Amino acid sequence: MNSESRIAVLCDELTTTWYEQIPLSKAMAVELVSFENDVLTVAAELEPNINLHGTGFAGSLYAINALCGWSMVHLQLKLRELEGSIVLADGRISYSRPARERIVAVCDFGEQVGALDTLAETGKARFTLTSTIASGGKPAATFEGDYAVLRPRDN
Amino acid sequence: MNSESRIAVLCDELTTTWYEQIPLSKAMAVELVSFENDVLTVAAELEPNINLHGTGFAGSLYAINALCGWSMVHLQLKLRELEGSIVLADGRISYSRPARERIVAVCDFGEQVGALDTLAETGKARFTLTSTIASGGKPAATFEGDYAVLRPRDN
Repeated sequence: MNSESRIAVLCDELTTTWYEQIPLSKAMAVELVSFENDVLTVAAELEPNINLHGTGFAGSLYAINALCGWSMVHLQLKLRELEGSIVLADGRISYSRPARERIVAVCDFGEQVGALDTLAETGKARFTLTSTIASGGKPAATFEGDYAVLRPRDN
Repeated sequence: MNSESRIAVLCDELTTTWYEQIPLSKAMAVELVSFENDVLTVAAELEPNINLHGTGFAGSLYAINALCGWSMVHLQLKLRELEGSIVLADGRISYSRPARERIVAVCDFGEQVGALDTLAETGKARFTLTSTIASGGKPAATFEGDYAVLRPRDN
């Protein structure tokens, strides 16, 4: 299987995992848009995620960004055939303007490649990832999360 | 109407607002448990909020805490008959252990009373609130949010 088809399969499997095992991903109607060049894009319509101002609910904007970051680590592990339990340890988010359109979260794996080597060598690693939702071409919700990954022990 | 009945009415109205205007609150099945002595408790069953480890999804734990903090500011404004648009500006959360039981978020208004005076005097204020979810008697997800409130202009 070539790299492109392999990524497509991994993305399909990931979406199935979301919907089957994280009910809120379905309630938010999150979709995987693309995973190319270490950039993951996920999206959701505004409607299931609105607040009483008719814009993106702060909880949804966080959850979509956090899921985008988690999914990035998940995909990177799968691509390297590394096993590991991925847990969000800390999250920080700034809301700089209301999200008034379809919610699109973008996460760039960026400089976290070194952490994959650490994971392969030591069995544990921490990935700090940023995922951003824009509105009207400007950042609306900028999330940063620290994901802790622990490789299962050999039995 | 005495103070207790007034609070009961405000809590009922708030729950209606959640379900009618924030669809995710319904998807997470958030309930208002109590609002007494400036402490607000909201809760949700684990099932609609699980992740693939079978524990609380990080996004749900954040969203429930953030909604608890927002609701605290909303109730405090209503009690003082102050009008204002409440927006979460920044959120920070630490996940210290998995949430393995019914999710219960507790927010104490604590020392934010001064910000109500600021709002009444200047028309704007910022409230920094903590909301915590415990599991097994220990903190599982500790959230801190900065809520910006802006009183509508007189026309």
